[in-house]
Amino acid sequence: MINTEKTMDKIVALCKGRGFVYPGSEIYGGLANTWDYGPLGVELKNNIKQAWRKKFVQENKYNVGLDSAILMNPQTWVASGHIGGFSDPLMDCKECKTRHRADNLIEDFDGTNPAGWSNEQMMNYIKEKEIPCPSCGKKNFTDIRQFNLMFKTFQGVTEDSKSELYLRPETAQGIFVNFANIQRTTRKKIPFGVAQVGKSFRNEITPGNFIFRVREFEQMELEFFCKPGTDLEWFDYWRSFCKNWLLSLHIKEENLRLRDHDPEELCFYSKATTDFEYLFPFGWGELWGVADRTDYDLNQHIKTSGKQLDYFDPETNERYVPYVIEPSLGVERLFLALLTEAYDEEEIAPGDVRTVMHFHPALAPFKAAVLPLSKKLSEKATEVYEMLAKHFPVDYDESGSIGKRYRRQDEIGTPFCITYDFDTLEKDNCVTIRDRDTMEQERVAISDLVAYLEKKIEF
Amino acid sequence: MINTEKTMDKIVALCKGRGFVYPGSEIYGGLANTWDYGPLGVELKNNIKQAWRKKFVQENKYNVGLDSAILMNPQTWVASGHIGGFSDPLMDCKECKTRHRADNLIEDFDGTNPAGWSNEQMMNYIKEKEIPCPSCGKKNFTDIRQFNLMFKTFQGVTEDSKSELYLRPETAQGIFVNFANIQRTTRKKIPFGVAQVGKSFRNEITPGNFIFRVREFEQMELEFFCKPGTDLEWFDYWRSFCKNWLLSLHIKEENLRLRDHDPEELCFYSKATTDFEYLFPFGWGELWGVADRTDYDLNQHIKTSGKQLDYFDPETNERYVPYVIEPSLGVERLFLALLTEAYDEEEIAPGDVRTVMHFHPALAPFKAAVLPLSKKLSEKATEVYEMLAKHFPVDYDESGSIGKRYRRQDEIGTPFCITYDFDTLEKDNCVTIRDRDTMEQERVAISDLVAYLEKKIEF
Repeated sequence: MINTEKTMDKIVALCKGRGFVYPGSEIYGGLANTWDYGPLGVELKNNIKQAWRKKFVQENKYNVGLDSAILMNPQTWVASGHIGGFSDPLMDCKECKTRHRADNLIEDFDGTNPAGWSNEQMMNYIKEKEIPCPSCGKKNFTDIRQFNLMFKTFQGVTEDSKSELYLRPETAQGIFVNFANIQRTTRKKIPFGVAQVGKSFRNEITPGNFIFRVREFEQMELEFFCKPGTDLEWFDYWRSFCKNWLLSLHIKEENLRLRDHDPEELCFYSKATTDFEYLFPFGWGELWGVADRTDYDLNQHIKTSGKQLDYFDPETNERYVPYVIEPSLGVERLFLALLTEAYDEEEIAPGDVRTVMHFHPALAPFKAAVLPLSKKLSEKATEVYEMLAKHFPVDYDESGSIGKRYRRQDEIGTPFCITYDFDTLEKDNCVTIRDRDTMEQERVAISDLVAYLEKKIEF
Repeated sequence: MINTEKTMDKIVALCKGRGFVYPGSEIYGGLANTWDYGPLGVELKNNIKQAWRKKFVQENKYNVGLDSAILMNPQTWVASGHIGGFSDPLMDCKECKTRHRADNLIEDFDGTNPAGWSNEQMMNYIKEKEIPCPSCGKKNFTDIRQFNLMFKTFQGVTEDSKSELYLRPETAQGIFVNFANIQRTTRKKIPFGVAQVGKSFRNEITPGNFIFRVREFEQMELEFFCKPGTDLEWFDYWRSFCKNWLLSLHIKEENLRLRDHDPEELCFYSKATTDFEYLFPFGWGELWGVADRTDYDLNQHIKTSGKQLDYFDPETNERYVPYVIEPSLGVERLFLALLTEAYDEEEIAPGDVRTVMHFHPALAPFKAAVLPLSKKLSEKATEVYEMLAKHFPVDYDESGSIGKRYRRQDEIGTPFCITYDFDTLEKDNCVTIRDRDTMEQERVAISDLVAYLEKKIEF
């Protein structure tokens, strides 16, 4: 009996072995859960971002894009609350000197979710339940102290002008500080949204689960500005839109659950929040957060900067500060969800298992692979490869048996294998296309190939 | 007489006014030459990166991609020499307390290029020529001190495990440390290259000239690994390849010069280096560096990590450390060069000047704009917009006279304006396409529109 269970170990091994994801700085023993995206990983990552931009910006008449700097004026983080409140509640074990997050101690102990609790509530709960230190088993913790999660850095070289900066912990604030500039230059009317893809940094004390929780990560955030009062309607709109987008990328509905926050779990400024959770091999984990953030962020920036960030509605002659709906998604988490979803070990004959990544063709690193049946056909097959490579990423492989080559392409999720054989050359100028998922084969004229494949990979 | 001179001020104003580039953190008074890319800027930037990836990776059978982390194990920077040697020679004026780069003082004084000089040589030259402080005019400087250009940060929250990290000053080292992983997983044979696009950070003391010199920037780097002895041949290959790529993006040859480094100007490990310089409105500035870096970087990492980073050549049964050709380009500088190149003020009738950005269609933020001739045609024109938006970014504009709308699109470089009129609806189901550059008009069937435009924007 072959164990075809989908596990993190198998996914991580495939990622490393085939060039999706390597441990960061590996030759130097790595660096605390950093990861580098290899030749296939960078394609998958770009395809994810491209699929997001296509549906959230290019095809969406409401939204425009932005790419703001990672380094921002620190007043931004005063306004956003990150300097004051973006911190983890940490406590030390007085016995063995290890440090822990109080909320994690509680959740790991009995599954209670202490979201929204005060430090005092958490302290009391830990004492009452006699939660022990996970390292030494003793029950002798310090009080909770808050540790800020922002990475700090310094700009400038002269001591007197040297200024403390932070690496942004989220891309969202880059959108809020540009609200007036964007509205003015695009002449967009409310409702409209601003979408941004970019790196953010959080000094998490316990990064882990492969690329699920990392300190350096990429976000795809949309801030959708709407008229107060219409916000819950738009919240529902984007909640559905995001869900449908995931389903359209072949995320299965049964692996997805939408968890609406209870009133006591909501941030004080939020009217509604839904966490999209995905069933990773290690259990359910947060994938996407959709929140109604009201006018909180813009008001904070108005207060801190003294600038006008309200909107004049030309239809009603009213001025108001728009409400904001924010769907916020991490590229790496979606990358991991898509790997998990795609991964499959199929027993195609007794004892014969193929590993196959069932990526949506739009996400697959290579759209096709050109495989000459004999090295004598290299030259002509290379012409086919070059023709296709002008349109989309294509692999070329002429080493090993055709069966082995199919398996290699299955494992990296190439949706179409194109076999160039002697008949192609001598008879029909057609190639055989083998479908990754059904393994069925079809004969297609070389002159129809680009159109055939472009239709199949459409998103 | 209208002044149609191409100046930085005009380009910066257009960028800010139309949503290409805004000052970073502007509502808080900015942050030392940081810039945010607005709705049009993000499209242009993505198109530049896409054009690079297409020709340097997708269509190039030698090269593969990588996306490594910004935060790397600090040993990387020991090996690369950045901790020891990546610094600016700074001196203070004892009179007015301002700080200056010694090499800039010399170059600004009489045009001498002190590249490769020692601090002592620069000191002597400054004394000998009696170069004054540009701020106060006195001649009383301190000695030169070296200031490291890397941004420092800290990872982890417990004091004992808190470790100093750097924001990478270049993407290249992420490629070198992954050399063995990439070679093993792609089974590539030498020669092959690894291409990476990503952010880097340098704590420059004098950022400036709009986006030309910034502290946070994006690089497009290729490290091309080849057999020692074939390196100068490959150097020539990539030097031409890069030049042709620029020309294919409509950079004019007369605005480009290739400056080969003299032997005394070369880094000690480099066999050949060529700087591509572009004629910006403020003068010639470095755009692209192509260097033969020999086996220097890999050897440094072999020495520092103790790992095998050599290559076994299956054809000759030899082991060697490959040589490296590195074409390294900054996205922002190319962005500025392309803006400069595209910018034009044309007097199309006496006293009537249109501003037009002649971007290559593949780079233009919008490929087309749909302009209904009357608001009564909105619904049907929107259908055309929606059809096109599935394929590429398109604008839609129905406010103002058609002439004004053409001008708005000219100014942001939209190559094709599509007018939907009453004949479209009532007679021929055709639209009028107006070419940005020639201003000529053509009648095209809606059913042919996607194919017509796709052919025009091909790159």
